[in-house]
Amino acid sequence: MIGCGTVGGGVARLLSEQGAEYARRLGRRVELRRVLVRRAERAVRESGLEASLVTQDVGAFFATPGLDVVVEVAGGVSEVGELVKRSLETGRSVVTANKALLAARGAELFALAKRRGVAVAFEASCGGGIPLVTATQFGMMANRIDDLYGILNGTCNFILTQMTRSGKSYGQALAEAQALGYAEADPAMDVSGRDAAQKLVVLASLAFGARLEESDVWCEGIDRLELADLRFGAELGYDIKLLAIAERRAGGLSLRVHPCFVPAESMIAQVHGSFNAVSLYGHAAGHIMCYGRGAGRMPTASAVVSDLLNVASGWYAKAFGGMNLWADGQARPVIMAAEELVCRYYIRLNALDRPGVMAKVAAVLGEAGVSLSGIIQHEASAGAFVPLAITTHDARQGDVLPALKRIEGLDVIEGRPVCIRIVEPPAG
Amino acid sequence: MIGCGTVGGGVARLLSEQGAEYARRLGRRVELRRVLVRRAERAVRESGLEASLVTQDVGAFFATPGLDVVVEVAGGVSEVGELVKRSLETGRSVVTANKALLAARGAELFALAKRRGVAVAFEASCGGGIPLVTATQFGMMANRIDDLYGILNGTCNFILTQMTRSGKSYGQALAEAQALGYAEADPAMDVSGRDAAQKLVVLASLAFGARLEESDVWCEGIDRLELADLRFGAELGYDIKLLAIAERRAGGLSLRVHPCFVPAESMIAQVHGSFNAVSLYGHAAGHIMCYGRGAGRMPTASAVVSDLLNVASGWYAKAFGGMNLWADGQARPVIMAAEELVCRYYIRLNALDRPGVMAKVAAVLGEAGVSLSGIIQHEASAGAFVPLAITTHDARQGDVLPALKRIEGLDVIEGRPVCIRIVEPPAG
Repeated sequence: MIGCGTVGGGVARLLSEQGAEYARRLGRRVELRRVLVRRAERAVRESGLEASLVTQDVGAFFATPGLDVVVEVAGGVSEVGELVKRSLETGRSVVTANKALLAARGAELFALAKRRGVAVAFEASCGGGIPLVTATQFGMMANRIDDLYGILNGTCNFILTQMTRSGKSYGQALAEAQALGYAEADPAMDVSGRDAAQKLVVLASLAFGARLEESDVWCEGIDRLELADLRFGAELGYDIKLLAIAERRAGGLSLRVHPCFVPAESMIAQVHGSFNAVSLYGHAAGHIMCYGRGAGRMPTASAVVSDLLNVASGWYAKAFGGMNLWADGQARPVIMAAEELVCRYYIRLNALDRPGVMAKVAAVLGEAGVSLSGIIQHEASAGAFVPLAITTHDARQGDVLPALKRIEGLDVIEGRPVCIRIVEPPAG
Repeated sequence: MIGCGTVGGGVARLLSEQGAEYARRLGRRVELRRVLVRRAERAVRESGLEASLVTQDVGAFFATPGLDVVVEVAGGVSEVGELVKRSLETGRSVVTANKALLAARGAELFALAKRRGVAVAFEASCGGGIPLVTATQFGMMANRIDDLYGILNGTCNFILTQMTRSGKSYGQALAEAQALGYAEADPAMDVSGRDAAQKLVVLASLAFGARLEESDVWCEGIDRLELADLRFGAELGYDIKLLAIAERRAGGLSLRVHPCFVPAESMIAQVHGSFNAVSLYGHAAGHIMCYGRGAGRMPTASAVVSDLLNVASGWYAKAFGGMNLWADGQARPVIMAAEELVCRYYIRLNALDRPGVMAKVAAVLGEAGVSLSGIIQHEASAGAFVPLAITTHDARQGDVLPALKRIEGLDVIEGRPVCIRIVEPPAG
């Protein structure tokens, strides 16, 4: 095993507590032979592992007798990527939880594994303990998948649930997530949507059989969401979720992560707190949703060890060899430009409370070809500016965003218009 | 392929429409070589298959050149069971959608397949297009699973949704299900819970690694549910679902199918209409739920063809060989007696509207050791009898049911008390 932090500790615990049961199921023992870490002394102290198991010496690690499979739970891309490469080059299959590594170097690593006749197993890289990769890769094999909508970051979903259900501000909810250990001290990877984008690259590569990269995903985080908009959304029948979306359309693949208003009664809106879920739409199977704990020590360890057992039982390498994911020579797909995205929009403006304002706003939207579907303006309390919430019919992002820039410039409007996309996953 | 009805037609369609794509993914072609049916002429007329593909002759079927895999979508147990046996005996792997066959003869067929070095694939036997078997068997491999709660019959869920949401009676909702093709002319297999019980045998065998039989499942259908109780349930914060439940407890395995009041905000309560879902609780992964279309031509065909492709790609037989399901020599588990089931109960009585009635009822329950948690009695409109809804704390079924018999005998009670179990799947 490379790394021995939160997830690594969980893996070690499962292998020690359930080792006999796993041996009974597999007909062979799976044992932790050596753990490679940066600081051996500290790892021994914190993990409780026997000192003889732990090493900082890369050479000693790869010389370990009986090292058949390398479990990578260290994280990071460049240094760990080289260790993963060396594992594959020396004929070891790799089990990894590292979505950043796969999003950046998946194609290279998969090709190397296939050349060497070994496998990369990566169930833990997306959705923690949810068997998403297994379900998509093997259980949906007969399907052409055209739509994928996922809640892939538990930190963001926890924050949004707290904002919606307890009326907390973004800052308060984030602080609570940090206090509970759901969010890192530096929450940027989570709240920017980048963590979800990396997972989307892995899952959409699998679902669409396409060679995708992180830069294919257009990304907007949750850190600028305001309670006022969540309340307007609720009034309109929507709940807020950070969705990772992959859609196959005539113009190409659309890959994006952004806050979405989803119908409050839709299945994906029922996913609360730190839970994750992914809705897939197969042309034959219809709508499938998998739900569960997307992070945390034991759920992620569950996925890592399940992969490890599937590799150890011998079938996975055979399945991997025939996998059409990040395959050598696969052409890069056409990625739809963000401007071409067509969806409904929620727009909130702070407008001067005087006659003619709505006419000006409507004129700008009309000229841009954006047609209105609904408007909410509550009886003004006091103050010159009142919030005005507008929903549109389907519109091109490339038409909506420039129109909002023009609206921002109107003298009757204060501040920057808020814009949240409305996404309605089919019931299916 | 054996059989060519609704699902068989879907399988033929997928293989013909997606054949080139499957060949690209697998590196080999999967072709429908021969279809065995009871009445060839009719099958050709109804399926549109070429006449040369269709035969009624069992000998000719098994003599088909290049017959590597047999897909069984005919249904039934004895006759089809012999054909499946013959397929395995002659070295063909079998893909089956037949839960009745597996619930009755799974152990025998699995043992035979293992002896012959071939495989039985059965994703389509439970939950239609939902990749439940794949997710449970491979994706949850590292887990000890102790709890499984499933909505496994779309017909019943459709009927219950219609009753709850549209206020239709059981009879009206059933008639609607029949008109829409969701329910058979003879709905007994569905509404009695037996279809769900057979699926539960397959899934729980897999999740618990135990050798189970249909007679291990205690079963109560939905055909006596009344709207009045669903309304009381809603008032108490519950939704009604027919759940297939498997729990591993100190006293043994509890396997049962019955109508349940579940908390309206729980994840399983969000499953409406003809959709199915299964919640599994892994000791490491925690709560996982898989949701989707549990029946229908194309969703079921999706599962059958996914299995077929996994068999054709070569890995599945290897995985099956190591599968610890219905294994030879596996001991039969201890099945908990229905009387030992402990849960909360909803009880509804028609009581004479006069002083002292509640005292009599409470006395009977108290003597049986059943403790009350809540009571609803609405202001009486007119009439001598008024409905009285009671909820209990956790109680033994073996204490509750005899107490209800005694209550039924009280002269202040009219008719048979209604009893619905309250089940609260952990958020997990």
